[in-house]
Amino acid sequence: MVKPDRFLADLETLRGFGAAGVGKGVIRPAFSEADIAARKWLAARMEEAGLVPHFDPAGNLFGLAEGRSLLLGSHSDSQPEGGWLDGALGVIAALEVARAARAAGGPAVSVVSFQDEESRFGVTTGSAIWSGTLPLDEADPLTDHSGVRFAEARGRMAALAGDFVDPGRFTGYIELHIEQGPVLDTAGERIGVVSDIVGIRDMRITFSGQQNHAGTTPMHLRRDAFQALGAFNAAIAERFRNVVTPASVWTIGHVTLHPNASSIVPGRATFSMQWRDGDTARLARMEEIVRATAQEIAQERGLGLSFGPLLGLEPVTMDARLRAALETGAEAVAPGKWRKLPSGALHDATNVARLMPVAMLFVPSIGGISHDFAEDTADDDLVAGLEVLARAADIVGRG
Amino acid sequence: MVKPDRFLADLETLRGFGAAGVGKGVIRPAFSEADIAARKWLAARMEEAGLVPHFDPAGNLFGLAEGRSLLLGSHSDSQPEGGWLDGALGVIAALEVARAARAAGGPAVSVVSFQDEESRFGVTTGSAIWSGTLPLDEADPLTDHSGVRFAEARGRMAALAGDFVDPGRFTGYIELHIEQGPVLDTAGERIGVVSDIVGIRDMRITFSGQQNHAGTTPMHLRRDAFQALGAFNAAIAERFRNVVTPASVWTIGHVTLHPNASSIVPGRATFSMQWRDGDTARLARMEEIVRATAQEIAQERGLGLSFGPLLGLEPVTMDARLRAALETGAEAVAPGKWRKLPSGALHDATNVARLMPVAMLFVPSIGGISHDFAEDTADDDLVAGLEVLARAADIVGRG
Repeated sequence: MVKPDRFLADLETLRGFGAAGVGKGVIRPAFSEADIAARKWLAARMEEAGLVPHFDPAGNLFGLAEGRSLLLGSHSDSQPEGGWLDGALGVIAALEVARAARAAGGPAVSVVSFQDEESRFGVTTGSAIWSGTLPLDEADPLTDHSGVRFAEARGRMAALAGDFVDPGRFTGYIELHIEQGPVLDTAGERIGVVSDIVGIRDMRITFSGQQNHAGTTPMHLRRDAFQALGAFNAAIAERFRNVVTPASVWTIGHVTLHPNASSIVPGRATFSMQWRDGDTARLARMEEIVRATAQEIAQERGLGLSFGPLLGLEPVTMDARLRAALETGAEAVAPGKWRKLPSGALHDATNVARLMPVAMLFVPSIGGISHDFAEDTADDDLVAGLEVLARAADIVGRG
Repeated sequence: MVKPDRFLADLETLRGFGAAGVGKGVIRPAFSEADIAARKWLAARMEEAGLVPHFDPAGNLFGLAEGRSLLLGSHSDSQPEGGWLDGALGVIAALEVARAARAAGGPAVSVVSFQDEESRFGVTTGSAIWSGTLPLDEADPLTDHSGVRFAEARGRMAALAGDFVDPGRFTGYIELHIEQGPVLDTAGERIGVVSDIVGIRDMRITFSGQQNHAGTTPMHLRRDAFQALGAFNAAIAERFRNVVTPASVWTIGHVTLHPNASSIVPGRATFSMQWRDGDTARLARMEEIVRATAQEIAQERGLGLSFGPLLGLEPVTMDARLRAALETGAEAVAPGKWRKLPSGALHDATNVARLMPVAMLFVPSIGGISHDFAEDTADDDLVAGLEVLARAADIVGRG
């Protein structure tokens, strides 16, 4: 059986690598000294648990059980100013489940801590490389905000690195993670079993009107790019209504006006339009609405319109068998206190799904806060997540 | 009688000081070498016309007739990338009217070219200093974008400067200017007689919501600061309807979102809200609507709200007698092709109105364009403006 005290103590030890000194926050970006030290400590803990630690060329750390096994894990790198649980929870829970399973002679469990999930270089870089989404030679020239190249960063771990691990040795992948949203916390629930990881569409849109004097240009003769954005924003909310579900989200998070001065009618407005949903057809329907609405508004108002490239990440549906095991575990550990829900955030599981069946479960984020020193989850809920993961691993392993 | 050819030739000569080499554009900011050279040339032209040239400590150049006289003029400095007519037209037309009046033995006319109307240092700096709106010792520490102080800039003209001219020697002030807006050009009219220079209110407003993950935060749990701005913008347009006239304008020209990233629900939106109208009571009513609407939206959506300081410039009504003289002149020169209209832009006349009766007239700006190398007006319309100004000066002087 898993030991909650040992699990919580390991989580606390991991927090010590790069502890921010502000609340429980951590500063442990991929390939930082704190990150590499944490990975060396994790490798030693894996070895103590009877697993074979193995670093790959991307900095991913595996703790390998003998023969074919289920793979559990997440990532141990953090945001530049991150919380103590984002990623770390899934890695330490995997370690505890693998350790307990081995002690009990249960089904074999391997562990992974992916590298750079927080996207210092690429996007979920370590698992993207392992899954073949991002070839290593395309990753090497990627740079972080200060100009450090991925090749240079992974060079710091070169002495530790062996080859890539053969994905064929794993029967599936389960990732425990904090929700990073307010749904479970708001509902007073303890466990979320993920139905799918939503897909993303993200596009820059530019309305080009006529820059003009804000005193001498009458309202009816203006071609105001900000007003076009306002009309677009209102129309989208209206037109999405018949298409979206309560799980669909859309965001205008970035806006740049030109020349951005209080006395000048904006001549240009460039903004981001991002939408996420679990259903590819709905993502496509939303795209049609976005494009048609922007075109109508530009035409009505005599403005120019341009669309940037569409960034697209496809939705990933969780494996039915792994998910059923998680649901059985959730009902045993937190009866009536769990729900199925989509993941609105990207995770390593998105990449791993190219290689094998995957599933995910969430525990609540207090106040929905993450990517912040204030990120936290009640100990009881952390342990509930651990126990659901252990039960699911056992069910799947005995499958 | 005024001589159109001489007037157009002088305008062309003035354009040669700081000619941009792009269309008819000029680069002649206040106190630049081109500006000082142009003022020296103007002083010489004034002297040839029988006026006494006089520079004051702020760099304003007067061409003084003997005894009490009507004052005509504008400014000869330009925007950093400016048009050839903005200001220059009013100065050269004044010179031609004064010259012709003197030659004909008509009523005395003086001429002025104010300095730094385009606000390199203050706001309409030269006329603000002369009118007592801006004391010279408060102007001296003002700096331009590159850190040059006004004191240093006016030092370049110190050898030319005498005392400030006594405003008591002038009976009134008339300024001919390009419209800098599309009204006359769109209507195919040739002259605008200004009814008033509108007042301005300008305020920064900030909505503070909750910065959140754009994937994991459901729509109904968001407190999105950009959405609050969108709702404010739409509500203002609706609520202003019952209050404004076709001459009222309002503009959201500046927007800053925080953190301004496509994957993050905006936690903060700071924007400029500017409105202009000729009526002080209407400006106040619009302010009530702005404040009440922002408060309602912040309250409904659970956002914080803060207002920056309110910038206020009061409307200035044109003098009835001077304006009537302009209307008589307009009807004689361009029968049925002129209108009364407010000035949405600030002008030196705003400051001069503190000292004496003022009036203004406009000629069309092709396409409404100004503050741009492409700024232009048909020669016929330039001459029409000159002739209306000459007739009005004559009427007023004999009045």
